[in-house]
Amino acid sequence: MPNATHPTRDVLLSPSPTAVVWSGAGHPLVQIATPGVSLGAGDLLVEVELATVCGSDLHTVLGHRSADTPLVLGHEQVGRVVALGEHARASNGTPLMVGMRVIWSVAVACGDCDRCVRGLSQKCRTLAKYGHDRVRRGWELSGGFATHVQVLAGTAVIIVDDELPAAVIAPASCATATVVAALDAASGVVPLAGETVVIAGAGLLGLTACAMATDAGATVIVSDPDAMRREVALRFGAAAAVEPVALQPTLARMLEQGSREPLVAIEMSGAPSAVAALVSTVGVGGVVVLVGSVSPGELVPIDPESIVRRLVTLRGVHNYGGGQLERAAEYLEGAAGRYPFASLVGETFGLGEVEQALELAARGTHLRVAIDPRSQTRTPALQAVAHASP
Amino acid sequence: MPNATHPTRDVLLSPSPTAVVWSGAGHPLVQIATPGVSLGAGDLLVEVELATVCGSDLHTVLGHRSADTPLVLGHEQVGRVVALGEHARASNGTPLMVGMRVIWSVAVACGDCDRCVRGLSQKCRTLAKYGHDRVRRGWELSGGFATHVQVLAGTAVIIVDDELPAAVIAPASCATATVVAALDAASGVVPLAGETVVIAGAGLLGLTACAMATDAGATVIVSDPDAMRREVALRFGAAAAVEPVALQPTLARMLEQGSREPLVAIEMSGAPSAVAALVSTVGVGGVVVLVGSVSPGELVPIDPESIVRRLVTLRGVHNYGGGQLERAAEYLEGAAGRYPFASLVGETFGLGEVEQALELAARGTHLRVAIDPRSQTRTPALQAVAHASP
Repeated sequence: MPNATHPTRDVLLSPSPTAVVWSGAGHPLVQIATPGVSLGAGDLLVEVELATVCGSDLHTVLGHRSADTPLVLGHEQVGRVVALGEHARASNGTPLMVGMRVIWSVAVACGDCDRCVRGLSQKCRTLAKYGHDRVRRGWELSGGFATHVQVLAGTAVIIVDDELPAAVIAPASCATATVVAALDAASGVVPLAGETVVIAGAGLLGLTACAMATDAGATVIVSDPDAMRREVALRFGAAAAVEPVALQPTLARMLEQGSREPLVAIEMSGAPSAVAALVSTVGVGGVVVLVGSVSPGELVPIDPESIVRRLVTLRGVHNYGGGQLERAAEYLEGAAGRYPFASLVGETFGLGEVEQALELAARGTHLRVAIDPRSQTRTPALQAVAHASP
Repeated sequence: MPNATHPTRDVLLSPSPTAVVWSGAGHPLVQIATPGVSLGAGDLLVEVELATVCGSDLHTVLGHRSADTPLVLGHEQVGRVVALGEHARASNGTPLMVGMRVIWSVAVACGDCDRCVRGLSQKCRTLAKYGHDRVRRGWELSGGFATHVQVLAGTAVIIVDDELPAAVIAPASCATATVVAALDAASGVVPLAGETVVIAGAGLLGLTACAMATDAGATVIVSDPDAMRREVALRFGAAAAVEPVALQPTLARMLEQGSREPLVAIEMSGAPSAVAALVSTVGVGGVVVLVGSVSPGELVPIDPESIVRRLVTLRGVHNYGGGQLERAAEYLEGAAGRYPFASLVGETFGLGEVEQALELAARGTHLRVAIDPRSQTRTPALQAVAHASP
């Protein structure tokens, strides 16, 4: 935040940075130009190279979560620093410079409150979130569906390799880092090496978790109702990918053949039935990590006696905290050659086509669709483009 | 277990060791004498000084858990070594000797299977449990409601101070050690010092947890529907003890007055309503430990989205594993002068009065009733005394 010792730095670009603003269901998406940007100490102005559409962008536009509008969607992206305030540094302490390629955390955190101190910076008492918060004066460029994002001091910033495809690294700041948090939550109870791990849901998070758990030495069974996604899971290291109804028989057969009973289960589908299935699937001392349930849904009945007698641990994970984004980026840099992460972005739209991108994303036929704000837009800036919700 | 290099040692006592045998609801309790005892390497024969009636003894006789009968009830007790097999050692490595006063774990574990290696010896693949298992030839003296218990190799044995009242130390091998396990499960997620801890249920486990969490630097709020138990909770360190319906208003008032929101909740009542209340009570990053739900009951509906968004951890704890019994004994030795543990045993019965002891325990007016197998019995040995279930 600006103060007397750290004056703001005013930046004027031509053409002006432009963001796509969403004002609620039934309202047109609008491109807004912000002629001048004031960077406080530690702030960055980043030109967006590619942004991907996350499931929670869809939750917002489909009304599955309440959101103060107007807001700029998008919180999975990669870009290059074009201007910066004083003393701007990456998470690892490296001074940032114009031209560096970076990703950044979805959360802006104070670093000092009780939650930040406990490592839960994603729930900072004065939290701001890219792509989620109402546009406010002085922070109009607050989401990834824009030519530029103003990255505020208090954001974890990671410098990334110039060679890594944008489609691989853009999702790191939501999907990949959340998977790192989920596997941390699991492995704090049951270290993954040598274990059987069940993952429900083969979306981008489930596939990433599949690859990461496989690389950690686990045998991974993925469950998903969609045959295409099950196919993809096999390319991300899954030992088996089955329909939800086939999960128990498959595990029983594997147990007969000498596999270990599953002690780790990761719920990334958000389906209440999957939550219930995973809770009853893990063996004594097992852990179930819930990640996918991020919009209101049915309550799930659990049997406390079974939880007690099996000494089961059930953990909710939402977003991620300190250090996990850096590990997400490191993982993708190492794993991009071994798993087809780049192939998961099915189509890329221009900044004037965000509505089409959201519509395609909502159809679920692609794990990610992307926005390239530098590409020619099909509709002129500063003009309504359509309704956001399908 | 006996083998060629460690022959068994036969022990003959006069009068013969005697155990009270339960053969299922509707059958009389019977005292059985076992004239000879064969001790394998590492086994002990212990003369019981005092045994306490645990809630799970009641679950057994009331049919709330299935049990293979006949069995000898009782798994909370203290006694003195009267004979021992070769190489019998306490958990800390001390060679055991005749005359030593000891307690021992409820579980007999192999120490080698995957669960033992993971620290879950209470769920050993070849588990035997004092007071729970069907009587078998060669291990008739398998429960605490007896003049003697044959403590098998593979049992954690702790030498205890001669001066500590039997009523204080007898419950260590179930209630107190389970509390140590519960607080370990909580503090692995949220260290207790400085936190607000909610405990549901002011039975022996809840009161012990209250004292132990208070000693760890927490502010403890106890909830229990019973006014007498709430009174007792205040003597075990509780900052407040309230009816379940008053829990939320009390926490809200404390929050206004500057207390921290509760991040730790321990469920020791077994009431489904308490499970649901605690899950919704803890703040972001909080942990709920379930301990009390050890008999079949209603399912509890939980909201997975709330678990995810609050990053809540829910853990089941049943019994305890390596090292926790030793810490339970150490705790009671230090805390017996500060909290009125000795007063919690309300009445003591002879070995011929186990039925009366169970009936009084089932009434719930005393937190523990005890059996002193050395006291005169009201009915002769080897004779039916009555039906066990109220």
